[in-house]
Amino acid sequence: MKEREFIKIIKSTLNSPYIGDDCAYLKDLNIVISQDSLVEDIHFKKDFITPYQLGYKTVMVNISDICASGAKPKYLTISLSLPSNTTNDFIENFYKGAKDAAKDVEIVGGDITGSDKIYISATAIGDTRNRNISSRSYAKPDYKIIVSGEHGNSAKGLAMLLCDKSLSQNEITNKFVKAHLMPQAQRDFSQQIAENIKDNYAMMDTSDGLADALFQIAKASNVIINIDTKKIPHDKSVDIHTVLYGGEDYQLVAAVPENLLQKISDYTIIGYVEKGSAAVKIDGQIFTEPDSSLFNHFKE
Amino acid sequence: MKEREFIKIIKSTLNSPYIGDDCAYLKDLNIVISQDSLVEDIHFKKDFITPYQLGYKTVMVNISDICASGAKPKYLTISLSLPSNTTNDFIENFYKGAKDAAKDVEIVGGDITGSDKIYISATAIGDTRNRNISSRSYAKPDYKIIVSGEHGNSAKGLAMLLCDKSLSQNEITNKFVKAHLMPQAQRDFSQQIAENIKDNYAMMDTSDGLADALFQIAKASNVIINIDTKKIPHDKSVDIHTVLYGGEDYQLVAAVPENLLQKISDYTIIGYVEKGSAAVKIDGQIFTEPDSSLFNHFKE
Repeated sequence: MKEREFIKIIKSTLNSPYIGDDCAYLKDLNIVISQDSLVEDIHFKKDFITPYQLGYKTVMVNISDICASGAKPKYLTISLSLPSNTTNDFIENFYKGAKDAAKDVEIVGGDITGSDKIYISATAIGDTRNRNISSRSYAKPDYKIIVSGEHGNSAKGLAMLLCDKSLSQNEITNKFVKAHLMPQAQRDFSQQIAENIKDNYAMMDTSDGLADALFQIAKASNVIINIDTKKIPHDKSVDIHTVLYGGEDYQLVAAVPENLLQKISDYTIIGYVEKGSAAVKIDGQIFTEPDSSLFNHFKE
Repeated sequence: MKEREFIKIIKSTLNSPYIGDDCAYLKDLNIVISQDSLVEDIHFKKDFITPYQLGYKTVMVNISDICASGAKPKYLTISLSLPSNTTNDFIENFYKGAKDAAKDVEIVGGDITGSDKIYISATAIGDTRNRNISSRSYAKPDYKIIVSGEHGNSAKGLAMLLCDKSLSQNEITNKFVKAHLMPQAQRDFSQQIAENIKDNYAMMDTSDGLADALFQIAKASNVIINIDTKKIPHDKSVDIHTVLYGGEDYQLVAAVPENLLQKISDYTIIGYVEKGSAAVKIDGQIFTEPDSSLFNHFKE
């Protein structure tokens, strides 16, 4: 997929300031909106995920984008395109999973159509009132880089599933498989920051990996982000390459002023922002592109 | 597709008052939201529609749902899943069509992923402030049934395209083909009603056909809708069966109190609402189900 090339064309055809971000902030309506899709055999395989888990993950992936903006997740619509052999059981379990993941976020609509494979597209709406909304371009020198949770678990879980698909069952006991199939949107981390911060700040989720998020913030804000990999929370069985580049953890990473930190809890400082142009400094070494091959020396 | 069966399961699994309508009215945020999908070989065939027209129609279909609610269409997100051989030209022309259809509605995001076939899902947001929002359950006895535009043109256009796909070109001259490939959301009709009406009212678009909309309103409001087919605006070359059952015209049909009519223009009265339970009376004959086979006697 030439996704980034296509996005450039869309941006120039529409001449819109919104295109390219994960969430669009619609200030006149006090909402953010985000739409994300999951396509069979591209984003998931039916063998590796139960209908309940697919509904659960669909909702979490979309709520995560709203959490990254700092808004309060409020509503979801889900559009399903399904093969003609789809069973009533699939629908019921998909929506049970969706409901359990949504918690107090209300699923208010969508549509159902036919198709050859399963296509899922969900849209999430967040309420921006009483919240300070982030932008990836708002990181500033001297800000601290903080993260939620553990990194790399989802990628390790996927690797385990690829070896043994029997690990995908309704009751998942393995922590890595669970991180991959039933990720948790970081609502509390997001809320604490967005309700307490007075200054502009940057925040993203790690859907495409922690390193990718750091590069996106560094580029959009035109700063250097300096991180110390020893500080990144991760399971000791996960190598640092996976911690940096493994996607789909749906943790949050934020660049915030130091004075915020006394007001929040459950975060880990992994680095800070420096003056300079669009780069990430990892353990002292400067990188201007998130090319994972550069990181082979991290492999344990 | 067992769409209606699935929707029942979703409604009972989620236990939500929202599921089943075309738009969800999120009162605390003063918005309505609607999501609709277009799937290759289900809703369109690449041979019959240009990328420009596909972008145009995607946007109009979604704006039409917002117009049916009475809200002011404001924002759209579009999620595209595309085969790997998709060209830059396709993207550019799709978004040119989308932009031309959107006019002052802003396209603010979405995502792009890979897939085997083209799968499009768009979400539209409408602003409900200063508008009275419709519900299909708000029709009352003595209300008038009014419609916008001509009915049945889109279905005739589709029939023509199925015979001669060369009719789908960038400059469409045929009015029926144009109605099918480039429908017009009825923004003015919607705005006039929603800004002027004081009472509760019902309004739907005719995406699934005029008769289907009448049955939906009659059922949700538990009333009899009495219509006179001679009054339905249509091209004289289109038979009454197509006028009633042809879908995708994206005209609006509303049940409104008579006192509204002096305040609006460009509408046609096709009937009125009677006391009684969940039925449509067509030229004096009562129907309780929208079974098109019942209407064969209308065929000209």
